[in-house]
Amino acid sequence: MNRDSKIPKATITRLSLYCRQLELLEFDGYRMVSSEKLAWLCRVNPAQVRKDLGYFGEFGVRGVGYDVRDLKRQIKKILAINRDWNLGIAGIGNLGTALLSYQNFPARGFNFVAAFDSDPKKIGKVFSSGLVIRDVDELKNAVKELNIEIGVITTPPAVAQGIVDLFLDANVNAILNFSPTQIHVPECCLIENIDFTIKLDVLTYKLKNELGI
Amino acid sequence: MNRDSKIPKATITRLSLYCRQLELLEFDGYRMVSSEKLAWLCRVNPAQVRKDLGYFGEFGVRGVGYDVRDLKRQIKKILAINRDWNLGIAGIGNLGTALLSYQNFPARGFNFVAAFDSDPKKIGKVFSSGLVIRDVDELKNAVKELNIEIGVITTPPAVAQGIVDLFLDANVNAILNFSPTQIHVPECCLIENIDFTIKLDVLTYKLKNELGI
Repeated sequence: MNRDSKIPKATITRLSLYCRQLELLEFDGYRMVSSEKLAWLCRVNPAQVRKDLGYFGEFGVRGVGYDVRDLKRQIKKILAINRDWNLGIAGIGNLGTALLSYQNFPARGFNFVAAFDSDPKKIGKVFSSGLVIRDVDELKNAVKELNIEIGVITTPPAVAQGIVDLFLDANVNAILNFSPTQIHVPECCLIENIDFTIKLDVLTYKLKNELGI
Repeated sequence: MNRDSKIPKATITRLSLYCRQLELLEFDGYRMVSSEKLAWLCRVNPAQVRKDLGYFGEFGVRGVGYDVRDLKRQIKKILAINRDWNLGIAGIGNLGTALLSYQNFPARGFNFVAAFDSDPKKIGKVFSSGLVIRDVDELKNAVKELNIEIGVITTPPAVAQGIVDLFLDANVNAILNFSPTQIHVPECCLIENIDFTIKLDVLTYKLKNELGI
């Protein structure tokens, strides 16, 4: 049975949250945590924590709680973040530049090993990290050379699909897309979209319909 | 009956997608669109489009489809994006700076009217747009003066909650949080989180469990 196919995406997202809070608890010297406390820290309810973890096995001890370090390790293994990942980013404008210096990526094992652009004025620029902006024409070779596993898209919408296709053609099967456009990927590939204005639309909808503003 | 309380958040998110595709269709000169075509453009299935729109009324004509311009207008009204919104942003590092120059915000009616930081070296800096970085101590006055309706958080995690509290204290009831930490807001307030590394965790989980990498 492929147990994983039944697991809701929201559960995976919450596992990521639990993992962070467990790291903070470990940092603060806690050895055990109850589902109630973990739930409170993550702003969910305790039954949700137990249900989410229940998809993957038995982790806690009834009446005692979870071993902080062990649960953190188990979740990292489940999420496949118990190792580092190599990222390539295409489109080095303001957002791309900001992401390249976003310290939370390397802190969590996500390392930008290549940056691409098509603008001759940008190609060859060296960041303080030592990363050099490469011509997007070199993408396929760079993927192979540097073992890029995830492609990050911060290009203008009009060229985003073309860049995604370059990544797919180079056998990068996972895309994190920041470009506010709908990207098409085949069934065998993964895409996650981060769209700032859609989140704002959700806020304005709720401001009107829930708060009556 | 409060019909809105039954509407799933995923529906609101998709309405935002539909709206964009309708804008593109209108730009390209289309007057009508079928649910099948709109669904294909948004990478969802046609039944989903009909169900999502069905929460809000009868928009299409059976066998004919939707009037592109009219449906766009209706969705904008539902999402409350048929008018502009005033945003204030706190934490003007690389990401904050990138967001301030992110053209998709003003293009969609989301206007940054104030920027805040606590770093004396940054306070007073003027952007090419004319926006000046203000001392975060001025936040409450600025909210009133400039009618800030949504607070955007791009501060380091350690200070994010404090800045959110300043916004809430100034009667800004909606927060878009980019800081990778759990923020607490009272029931009467709204928060949407945009967390880059959680999306990467979802990708790595799927890479391992769905693609077997």
